Amino acid sequence: MKNAVNAILLLSCPDRRGLVAKISNFIFNHNGNIVHADQHTSKRGKIFFMRVEWELNGFSLGREEIPAAFAPLAEQFEMKWKLHFTDYVPRIAVFVSRHLHCLNDLILRNHMSEFKAEIPLVISNHLDARESVEQFGLQFFHFPITQANKAKQEKLEMELLQGMKIDIVVLARYMQIITGKFLKVYHDRIINIHHSFLPAFAGGNPYQQAYDRGVKIIGATGHYVTENLDEGPIIAQDVIKISHRDSIADIQMKSKDLERIVLARALRLHLENRILVYGSKTVVFE
Amino acid sequence: MKNAVNAILLLSCPDRRGLVAKISNFIFNHNGNIVHADQHTSKRGKIFFMRVEWELNGFSLGREEIPAAFAPLAEQFEMKWKLHFTDYVPRIAVFVSRHLHCLNDLILRNHMSEFKAEIPLVISNHLDARESVEQFGLQFFHFPITQANKAKQEKLEMELLQGMKIDIVVLARYMQIITGKFLKVYHDRIINIHHSFLPAFAGGNPYQQAYDRGVKIIGATGHYVTENLDEGPIIAQDVIKISHRDSIADIQMKSKDLERIVLARALRLHLENRILVYGSKTVVFE
Amino acid sequence: MKNAVNAILLLSCPDRRGLVAKISNFIFNHNGNIVHADQHTSKRGKIFFMRVEWELNGFSLGREEIPAAFAPLAEQFEMKWKLHFTDYVPRIAVFVSRHLHCLNDLILRNHMSEFKAEIPLVISNHLDARESVEQFGLQFFHFPITQANKAKQEKLEMELLQGMKIDIVVLARYMQIITGKFLKVYHDRIINIHHSFLPAFAGGNPYQQAYDRGVKIIGATGHYVTENLDEGPIIAQDVIKISHRDSIADIQMKSKDLERIVLARALRLHLENRILVYGSKTVVFE
Amino acid sequence: MKNAVNAILLLSCPDRRGLVAKISNFIFNHNGNIVHADQHTSKRGKIFFMRVEWELNGFSLGREEIPAAFAPLAEQFEMKWKLHFTDYVPRIAVFVSRHLHCLNDLILRNHMSEFKAEIPLVISNHLDARESVEQFGLQFFHFPITQANKAKQEKLEMELLQGMKIDIVVLARYMQIITGKFLKVYHDRIINIHHSFLPAFAGGNPYQQAYDRGVKIIGATGHYVTENLDEGPIIAQDVIKISHRDSIADIQMKSKDLERIVLARALRLHLENRILVYGSKTVVFE
Repeated sequence: MKNAVNAILLLSCPDRRGLVAKISNFIFNHNGNIVHADQHTSKRGKIFFMRVEWELNGFSLGREEIPAAFAPLAEQFEMKWKLHFTDYVPRIAVFVSRHLHCLNDLILRNHMSEFKAEIPLVISNHLDARESVEQFGLQFFHFPITQANKAKQEKLEMELLQGMKIDIVVLARYMQIITGKFLKVYHDRIINIHHSFLPAFAGGNPYQQAYDRGVKIIGATGHYVTENLDEGPIIAQDVIKISHRDSIADIQMKSKDLERIVLARALRLHLENRILVYGSKTVVFE
Repeated sequence: MKNAVNAILLLSCPDRRGLVAKISNFIFNHNGNIVHADQHTSKRGKIFFMRVEWELNGFSLGREEIPAAFAPLAEQFEMKWKLHFTDYVPRIAVFVSRHLHCLNDLILRNHMSEFKAEIPLVISNHLDARESVEQFGLQFFHFPITQANKAKQEKLEMELLQGMKIDIVVLARYMQIITGKFLKVYHDRIINIHHSFLPAFAGGNPYQQAYDRGVKIIGATGHYVTENLDEGPIIAQDVIKISHRDSIADIQMKSKDLERIVLARALRLHLENRILVYGSKTVVFE
Repeated sequence: MKNAVNAILLLSCPDRRGLVAKISNFIFNHNGNIVHADQHTSKRGKIFFMRVEWELNGFSLGREEIPAAFAPLAEQFEMKWKLHFTDYVPRIAVFVSRHLHCLNDLILRNHMSEFKAEIPLVISNHLDARESVEQFGLQFFHFPITQANKAKQEKLEMELLQGMKIDIVVLARYMQIITGKFLKVYHDRIINIHHSFLPAFAGGNPYQQAYDRGVKIIGATGHYVTENLDEGPIIAQDVIKISHRDSIADIQMKSKDLERIVLARALRLHLENRILVYGSKTVVFE
Repeated sequence: MKNAVNAILLLSCPDRRGLVAKISNFIFNHNGNIVHADQHTSKRGKIFFMRVEWELNGFSLGREEIPAAFAPLAEQFEMKWKLHFTDYVPRIAVFVSRHLHCLNDLILRNHMSEFKAEIPLVISNHLDARESVEQFGLQFFHFPITQANKAKQEKLEMELLQGMKIDIVVLARYMQIITGKFLKVYHDRIINIHHSFLPAFAGGNPYQQAYDRGVKIIGATGHYVTENLDEGPIIAQDVIKISHRDSIADIQMKSKDLERIVLARALRLHLENRILVYGSKTVVFE
């Protein structure tokens, strides 16, 4: 039973009468058993969002046959849709600079099988992470970045990722901006952790900004990366209280716990195919 | 558009293939537009839970016709189900003893139209609440309770509630146990606020218990009332940090804010027909 | 015992060796019993902050004699200081526009004696609040504001406040900016509630801003009012989770609970003389 | 400057007039500069608690001379007191059974220098932890426990700890009860993480208990270990929301994050000498 495979359909389309019926009929008519169904209609945009998960066991279509069988319905209702299977193990590349707490946390969680994913490689513009990465048996690649070589390095990184069949990129405190073609290829598949409660303290040194402003709560934000830095669709956020007693070092210490947890939560939601992006926002079916 | 009326169906039944399809077809076949659908399957008990909300506008069945039309499907799948309409305004009786913060909060929220409900009356075993209740134009009834008169008073209270067509009873810090027939008539319709994070500090004086134990967080719990005191199905809980600096009076002050908010949240979830009770637990479709 | 009066000294000065000793000796040498002492040194500015509370009962100085007796010490160490007595009952004026939830909450809390304060009057640029204000026996004053009359009206308001010996001004969702002389007279004594997690969503319509940005958590901020709108020293903040399911109306509903609690908390901290302002930040001795 | 050493005095005694003055004079008279002072008086027990930290730099007493110099004052006021120096690096032994998330988290935090401590060894009644412990270069000791050998094994463990000059024992999900003499030797120096919000769900399998009760929030508790299991003085607690959607596996997943953070927080408070225990409670000077 534990190894039973499910199919997950994530879709969005203009809201229309009968969408839930049509989609659940499609599954039922092929003898599928829905184990989770969640639906949301954005009142503003009149957009319909759905996540539906059903057992492949007993389903009358082979998994390769599903897309073709579903396509007519999808076309009729102008759906954007993705189909996932729960036995697929996505491959993650982690990018990091010099702050290693998020990277180490991801490696350790993966080592303890908290994620259904593989992390075959870590890429960094510095060498600090090499030791702990290799200690856990992962491959480490060093891509130093300068203004002069940035475009070239990004191109090489992308080739490496594609050669290693990477599905998801996680920026675990990576201090370089991802640009152009990289963003397009990994659209809605690059997750960043920002060490503030966005949109507060976007940009550089949010610990210092929080300290200077005298806020009583700090936060962390996991989001998809888009061209506009720190403005990508937010996946998860969390906060913790601080006080006048907290120095910047204390703020950093508290924030690091937040960052680890929020990044892990955002990544897990992505891995479980619970997120639909529309515009600059997300629907997260928890 | 704002005044458009929706139907809400809350149901549970043994899990079976095709339930989502059957139910959404029932709505679609009568030309209904689903605006929200949420579903849950308890893996343990293999029980299926669903909340589905659709627009009556354009629906081909009159609201009185729906139950008869739905009954065959319900019988076939052994459903427990309730049908609600969003233009129905439930009537609430609030019971209170001497701590008035929750009562006053409910009255004020209702005065500001936060709830879609009426509060025609307040019942108390003491007189403390009379002034503020009557100040807001609500009826106040005094039912002093002794061991000797309790059964008789409860019977009179129940007659009063039924005479005034009360749908929901809220115990807003009411220090008497509700018994027997009262519980049956208002089964799953009596909401209590307990001033602790249940199951911690059940029973009397939870502030004192929390202080004595030296916990660092206190809580409040909104739950349905059952025969076993403080063991009813939990609807909502929330917590707040305390420290060694907090005296019992400070704990009480902080708790009162929690109690108000948790009770209001639990009541709102009930009023929006988002709760299904099964056994000693709830499914809350938020 | 309950009515025993304490003195509270709030002070800040350049950090120097022996400050705690000098101050506690001053109290001890006059036979005072310290019941609370809290101290903080800002590492950055090398500023020393202290709040010390002692019993007047048995203290060898009369309360009128304390300032003169303390002055030499204060001068020697260049202290900024304020002396308070716990039997003083501050007088609060609440300013409000059309959203009444914070106002009503304050009135009700005061009615239930949660604050050690009086609220003799409410001032509004609209008439919406009149009914509930007068229902609770408080005075209501209507000061409609236009661009033309603003300066004149503020002057009249200030005369009214001074005539009624108002100590503290609370802006409970007051949609007008306080200016110039008013700010000076009530420096560090005007508390505003902003319905966002500052510095995120400063300015107008933060509910809409939060909705549009797709944040997963919203907040509220209680702060002192300064010339730069929404940039005053922050006293208290709190947050609540939201999701894609929350419409702007839902966000507003959740935020209103936050606003009430955060404003009440900020006001209580002020009333208990727990706050020291320095620059654009606060030290809050909780 | 960073390496400047401070002294920290933690003390409690019956409340008396002049304690703050006497203690701060002791420091000032030896030319000490207080950098933090925090004080609390328990109203119930009339007990005075204080934590005071001052710079050794410039202090006229050598660190070995302080105890003798302070003793007369301590005796006069019947103080219980401990003196710490911030350059001392405590040595921690971690005990673990088969759930390794807390252990791994502690090792990783220590590896990243989050704690000012050493973890020379890990002790387990199972072998699961060996690999990751040794991977990080720590010593692993296997002490299998049966009813028959428990007393003997505990004795050997204690000899090992004392031989390795261990100051603090952390039970990072260790599924054995610590008894008798061990408890006495490491009184108030054994920290346990319990995977529930104590006193709720004390004892075995709190995840299952929380699931069965249908609570909407779960928690974790860091506490000192005493003879009565799960009743030791609480140091830190935190909580996270759950819903009907969370299976026991989901609850476990969420709880593991809590446990890691709460244990790390409790340990850090202990390492920073911020905790005073009295009876079954703690004063935590944050």
